[in-house]
Amino acid sequence: MENLIIIGSGPAGHTAGIYAGRAMLAPIMFEGNMAGGVSAGGQLTTTNEVENFPGFPNGINGTELMEKMREQSLNSGVKIETKTVDKVDLSSSPFAVYVGDDVYKTKSLIISTGAIAKRLGIKGESEFWQKGISACAICDGALPIFRNKVLGVVGGGDSAIEEADHLSKYASKVYMFVRRDEFRASKVMQQRAFDNEKIEILWNTEIKEAKGENVIKSVVVYDNKNDRDYDLEIGGLFYAIGHTPNTKFLDGQIELDQDGYIITKSGTTQTSVPGVFAAGDVQDKKFRQAITSAGTGCMASMEVEKYLK
Amino acid sequence: MENLIIIGSGPAGHTAGIYAGRAMLAPIMFEGNMAGGVSAGGQLTTTNEVENFPGFPNGINGTELMEKMREQSLNSGVKIETKTVDKVDLSSSPFAVYVGDDVYKTKSLIISTGAIAKRLGIKGESEFWQKGISACAICDGALPIFRNKVLGVVGGGDSAIEEADHLSKYASKVYMFVRRDEFRASKVMQQRAFDNEKIEILWNTEIKEAKGENVIKSVVVYDNKNDRDYDLEIGGLFYAIGHTPNTKFLDGQIELDQDGYIITKSGTTQTSVPGVFAAGDVQDKKFRQAITSAGTGCMASMEVEKYLK
Ligand SMILES: Cc1cc2nc3c(=O)[nH]c(=O)nc-3n(C[C@H](O)[C@H](O)[C@H](O)COP(=O)(O)OP(=O)(O)OC[C@H]3O[C@@H](n4cnc5c(N)ncnc54)[C@H](O)[C@@H]3O)c2cc1C
Ligand SMILES: Cc1cc2nc3c(=O)[nH]c(=O)nc-3n(C[C@H](O)[C@H](O)[C@H](O)COP(=O)(O)OP(=O)(O)OC[C@H]3O[C@@H](n4cnc5c(N)ncnc54)[C@H](O)[C@@H]3O)c2cc1C
Repeated sequence: MENLIIIGSGPAGHTAGIYAGRAMLAPIMFEGNMAGGVSAGGQLTTTNEVENFPGFPNGINGTELMEKMREQSLNSGVKIETKTVDKVDLSSSPFAVYVGDDVYKTKSLIISTGAIAKRLGIKGESEFWQKGISACAICDGALPIFRNKVLGVVGGGDSAIEEADHLSKYASKVYMFVRRDEFRASKVMQQRAFDNEKIEILWNTEIKEAKGENVIKSVVVYDNKNDRDYDLEIGGLFYAIGHTPNTKFLDGQIELDQDGYIITKSGTTQTSVPGVFAAGDVQDKKFRQAITSAGTGCMASMEVEKYLK
Repeated sequence: MENLIIIGSGPAGHTAGIYAGRAMLAPIMFEGNMAGGVSAGGQLTTTNEVENFPGFPNGINGTELMEKMREQSLNSGVKIETKTVDKVDLSSSPFAVYVGDDVYKTKSLIISTGAIAKRLGIKGESEFWQKGISACAICDGALPIFRNKVLGVVGGGDSAIEEADHLSKYASKVYMFVRRDEFRASKVMQQRAFDNEKIEILWNTEIKEAKGENVIKSVVVYDNKNDRDYDLEIGGLFYAIGHTPNTKFLDGQIELDQDGYIITKSGTTQTSVPGVFAAGDVQDKKFRQAITSAGTGCMASMEVEKYLK
């Protein structure tokens, strides 16, 4: 019988691990084995330069940062298993955690399985991923390669406009590629896009391909109203088409919001099931940063320590 | 007229700075000049080893970590002034920030002035501060110097018992020094202290002096019931007598709780005054960690960016 099992291995999971290990809870972490298509270590392993995680004045490579956190978890006494959790049974405490043919019983659980930024699946996408294509304007917008460039944002919701607006601080111009002839976004946000002189909205457009040389140089735009393709030079392409939180394996046993994110009690990491805590992007669609995820990972472990008493 | 002024320079302030600088808000930070008796850089500058900040597998010196964050703020475009803010006027927007003879006007404000762990002011305190005397059991309890030692906790409230309980995982024994003949703590917490075999409560005691050689070796205990002093060997002394949030300079213009902490809207960093945000220990008496403070600093900047639109 375990005190604590941590599912997921991004900044939230590892910070939870560091705190729980140091608190002598002897936690087990299932770091995942390409769970949701992402390496153990989480989303940051898909990026090069992380410039906004405090403590690294010159930035740090995403994979390197996560290797450091993993080592720190190990040093703190976390037992890490490179396996993906298939399902859980939360109907009674202790909870059951299913991993391949094994079943683990645990008194408490921290879910930090993160979220996956949705991709378009277009030609050239993997080639230019993080070489001009990004899923996070807040994280990557300030990088030198995007300064004074013409950039593109894919999406028509609130966060697409927010990202375009944010990027317009660095870019010479920002195209928004919107599939329909209107935004899905709220009226206020729409107005913000219309008011921003650097933003040009290309209605009825879809991106079909990313082209370039080492880095992205242009995209093939499909004008779905006139059924024609054209090339457009851009120096960066930002996806703002949503995220998928990794909560399927919970099979409805925890309260989720309409987008599949775990609902936590405000100001805490408590879920709808006592003894089950959630940290990081899996419960946060607002901030979605490594440092905010890490903060909630710490909170989760401190709450677990209290709960176990 | 400034977009954003950040007051305070701990992990919360600098993380806010990094995010706001990168978002091109050209923030000014007043890092303080021994404000509240603490160096610019905040509470971590008073500790040696920080082992639980994710990203540093072998721990990092507190001052060094804060120097890195400061450099990162500068690299991100924060203008840092080594001055203490004397007062603010939040009665109308833009807000006024008073620093010596200067007045700054700003559209938004992040307050991250932290809190000060209360000290006893006893003989030997400064000599053995962080050489056996600590103000944070969660942070320092797991350090090798405290393992299997007899430790002491000063205080009689909930958090004193929580700290004693936490320390009992590492210590061979934990004395609680309680000034009166009863706890101030809640019934549940009291029971936890009574049930823990490693905890021995010394009622009616006060600590008068810390003694040792390089590190603390013993304390002089004053038994206030029998009016006598005695020496007690201990390998570590933890203060759990409360914190003082640095909120006096706000002069009641923002809603505070009964202990002087800024009240934020749950799940956000918004204070009672629109445009004024609070991050870190100044608004958190529950978690009080560098990583949680940093997380809320990030949140504050992202909320400022939205607010300024
Ligand atoms: C391209 C890109 C660049 C980014 N750049 C930055 C940046 O510069 N700065 C910044 O602050 N943020 C950045 N972010 C955001 C940041 O990566 C996330 O906010 C952060 O990683 C979230 O941490 P997390 O711990 O919640 O989960 P994640 O990082 O998402 O990690 C979750 C982990 O859990 C695993 N997992 C999922 N399901 C299971 C299961 N059933 N069993 C076991 N394991 C499972 C996953 O495989 C994954 O490894 C970026 C994101 C992307 C996509
Ligand atoms: C001895 C000790 C050891 C600790 N060890 C750890 C640890 O190992 N790990 C961990 O996670 N946490 C640790 N903590 C807790 C951690 O230091 C705090 O949670 C964290 O520093 C809070 O950050 P903050 O940004 O809110 O503010 P603080 O770090 O408190 O910094 C606030 C800063 O603002 C300045 N300031 C105040 N008023 C003004 C003003 N009017 N104008 C300008 N500046 C002002 C102060 O001088 C100070 O420099 C420790 C704390 C102590 C006391």
